[in-house]
Amino acid sequence: MSPDRVISVDGRRARRDQNRERVVDALLDLYREGNLQPSVAAVAERSGVSHRSVFRYFEDLDELYRVAIERQYDAVSNLMRLSRIGEGPLDDRIDRIVENRLTLYDAVAPVARVGRMRAPIEPVLEEHIRDMSVRGLQQIRTHFAPEFAAVPTGTAGAIAEAVAALLSLEMVEFLRRIRGLGREETATVIGTTLGGLLPLERKAH
Amino acid sequence: MSPDRVISVDGRRARRDQNRERVVDALLDLYREGNLQPSVAAVAERSGVSHRSVFRYFEDLDELYRVAIERQYDAVSNLMRLSRIGEGPLDDRIDRIVENRLTLYDAVAPVARVGRMRAPIEPVLEEHIRDMSVRGLQQIRTHFAPEFAAVPTGTAGAIAEAVAALLSLEMVEFLRRIRGLGREETATVIGTTLGGLLPLERKAH
Repeated sequence: MSPDRVISVDGRRARRDQNRERVVDALLDLYREGNLQPSVAAVAERSGVSHRSVFRYFEDLDELYRVAIERQYDAVSNLMRLSRIGEGPLDDRIDRIVENRLTLYDAVAPVARVGRMRAPIEPVLEEHIRDMSVRGLQQIRTHFAPEFAAVPTGTAGAIAEAVAALLSLEMVEFLRRIRGLGREETATVIGTTLGGLLPLERKAH
Repeated sequence: MSPDRVISVDGRRARRDQNRERVVDALLDLYREGNLQPSVAAVAERSGVSHRSVFRYFEDLDELYRVAIERQYDAVSNLMRLSRIGEGPLDDRIDRIVENRLTLYDAVAPVARVGRMRAPIEPVLEEHIRDMSVRGLQQIRTHFAPEFAAVPTGTAGAIAEAVAALLSLEMVEFLRRIRGLGREETATVIGTTLGGLLPLERKAH
């Protein structure tokens, strides 16, 4: 293969990747604007890629949806990271993780909603949501390790599950969207509950 | 109008109502069996009503879905009722409401899942889910009134929201389906958390 031919193949691949990205970005933008079931025409128009090309870059609509929501889950993974995990007094740790989750929710809610809508019929999405819940639980166990160390393993395990559930995007979605609470109220509900629940050492004595 | 004619009109209306019921039952049965997006042909076959008749009984598929899920929410409302609400010692009240919610979940989960999938694009469904959450909160406030009376209104309000959220179908769905916990484990997680959270009087002193 001549060098020219290699460049041309690489160039074509790069353009293809770039156009796939643009289509995915366009779909995520439409979701974020509240259009949960955009037409292919709308995605094509927003991305500047022709309707026909959308189907050259993606085998079918399901592939496009999957790639978009997987990209979203990567973003969630990154935004979930806590600095100084497990460090500092309990109240401060509670405040930081509640703040982290509300910020995460604001960043991803509309797309997460689409993910949850489609999860029951798309096993790969349900798998992502499960992975995220496992990561959430591990993070809780690390962040509140001193508290869990003070009580029997079974109790610690059950309370860790509950704390992870209270801090899940599903819970924030429930409080914000179903209960209609604002960001501050939601922070108060979750923070007050964790503050009532987590001083486990006191209760163990 | 002759008596005969009256009987005939009533008879036709009765048959129509009966067939509508059969179509709705068929759809709910298919949901319960895990078929979350049944075809009209599948619904028609299950109900014994012809494909064409489905659209004589329902303006469009959205009307059918709506009627089916509204029927489901009525069932949820009934199953949510607690006998001896607010009576007895705290531990007993916790056990009874946790048991109520897990039984409710077992009865309605697959159809509730369809309802949640469609809620973001069907305002009437989102309204039902919100109504249910308001009823859940009112029930919690009554069932745990002695505990909430022991703390300042703001704290009581925040903890009531959290308790209602912990006892919501959304939470049970998170623990059972996303976290993969069994019924007993789920009861332990919710029960242990409520037992750690609700002895508010002790904390207020």
